[in-house]
Amino acid sequence: MSVKIEKDDQPRTISRREFLSGAGIVAASAIGISSTSKLTKGVVQQEWPWSYEKLDVEQVRKLGHLGYYEGACSYGAFHAIVSALGEKVGDPYANFPTLMMKYGEGGVVGWGSLCGGLNGACAAIGLIAGEDYKPLVNELIAWYSATPLPTAISNDLAVNHEFLVSEYKSDQALEQSVSESSLCHVSVTNWCKASGFASGSAERSERCGRLTGDVAAYAVELLNANADGAFEAVLPLSEDTQACRTCHSKGKEFDLGQWTRGKEECSACHEPHD
Amino acid sequence: MSVKIEKDDQPRTISRREFLSGAGIVAASAIGISSTSKLTKGVVQQEWPWSYEKLDVEQVRKLGHLGYYEGACSYGAFHAIVSALGEKVGDPYANFPTLMMKYGEGGVVGWGSLCGGLNGACAAIGLIAGEDYKPLVNELIAWYSATPLPTAISNDLAVNHEFLVSEYKSDQALEQSVSESSLCHVSVTNWCKASGFASGSAERSERCGRLTGDVAAYAVELLNANADGAFEAVLPLSEDTQACRTCHSKGKEFDLGQWTRGKEECSACHEPHD
Repeated sequence: MSVKIEKDDQPRTISRREFLSGAGIVAASAIGISSTSKLTKGVVQQEWPWSYEKLDVEQVRKLGHLGYYEGACSYGAFHAIVSALGEKVGDPYANFPTLMMKYGEGGVVGWGSLCGGLNGACAAIGLIAGEDYKPLVNELIAWYSATPLPTAISNDLAVNHEFLVSEYKSDQALEQSVSESSLCHVSVTNWCKASGFASGSAERSERCGRLTGDVAAYAVELLNANADGAFEAVLPLSEDTQACRTCHSKGKEFDLGQWTRGKEECSACHEPHD
Repeated sequence: MSVKIEKDDQPRTISRREFLSGAGIVAASAIGISSTSKLTKGVVQQEWPWSYEKLDVEQVRKLGHLGYYEGACSYGAFHAIVSALGEKVGDPYANFPTLMMKYGEGGVVGWGSLCGGLNGACAAIGLIAGEDYKPLVNELIAWYSATPLPTAISNDLAVNHEFLVSEYKSDQALEQSVSESSLCHVSVTNWCKASGFASGSAERSERCGRLTGDVAAYAVELLNANADGAFEAVLPLSEDTQACRTCHSKGKEFDLGQWTRGKEECSACHEPHD
């Protein structure tokens, strides 16, 4: 006995032993769910992506800043976008358990890994953009890595007391820095060194709140452009990274240097070599 | 006019200007959602965390490996846990759009940042464990960073053809390596150098499939222990990292070196100094 499962129109077979063990049933569900071209025909009818209506970029910037003070960076960016859609579209956004994204705080519970603002905004794109997620997420990380943050817009909002949090930790324009990395550790370090503020300071926290709003806002710019069919990738990898990747990238030639993968700014951690 | 919003029993006030602009209404929703102690009383009644029933660790390991071949590492780990709960508990797990987590592949669309298997498993903990997420996620990253992967269990499953994917890319026991990092870039590099396989090889892909199952399985071990009230953090940061963090950690003393934050293995990127 075998069970045929279709994925991308290629029939697949689960063995009788797997099926009888019960594992096959779960596997069938799993494949049904993940068969993106046939989502509504899967064993479990999982809706994805969810419908999108273009959002107000500046409203989301304020909501991201607010969300940072409610549940930190990762939740803040994700909740800004999803709650704005909850207001505009209603369900299923309105009932999404956005608090699940709190784990991303400080590069995942303080480890300094992937910036939580990025993680939350990328997760929102992953929920909303369907199979278009890849170029949008790629562009968001490239933008994050190359842009002086917090943006002048966020600094102006703070100076003019136009954020939604009534008492935030600094109402001054804060120093801008370029992370050259997707990592919380690098991003925070660069900003602290540029500004002279410590990582546990109120100003660093406020900086990350503004950045959370900025990242959520830029994700919405990308989602809006995509909804209009007008998205274009404009930010290439740096010339240095492109040069490194001629050897050191994902590929099949170990001896050439293809024993790694990644798109980060190599010089953030590595010395160049001849 | 002002609107009182309660958060953790502390009344807050949104200004009349903010309220009339409409932003206050959204802000009220946002605060209602994120007020974790009053979730059911919020403006939007967002359910979080979702109820958990203890899962079969070995079933989830197989589902994680299967999910990797359906939607890569981040989706694979997340979907393994959530779909297993969908089978056991039903809604709302059964209808969760797990495909949103595909964005985490290869350290977020190939950037080599946070390992996607970790990101997906941490997101599942964030959904399930409620305010207990922090120590569980912390322990999962510490385990990931210090454990030879793929585990011997996954290697045995492959050799004995007991995975749920009928044709995976290698049925051999694969070399194990310790990442000493949460990053895809570092984890993949270490494994490629230990094994001699290139990053674009079928074996590296299969290695990441087994690792995805292993990470999902360990997350379930932690969730099961937590459900029994038996979770204990057992993995400290390395002695080297603890030593670095006596100066270089999140804090208020810039001149001491508190211009950074993080818990990663410092020596993975930095030379030690006196």
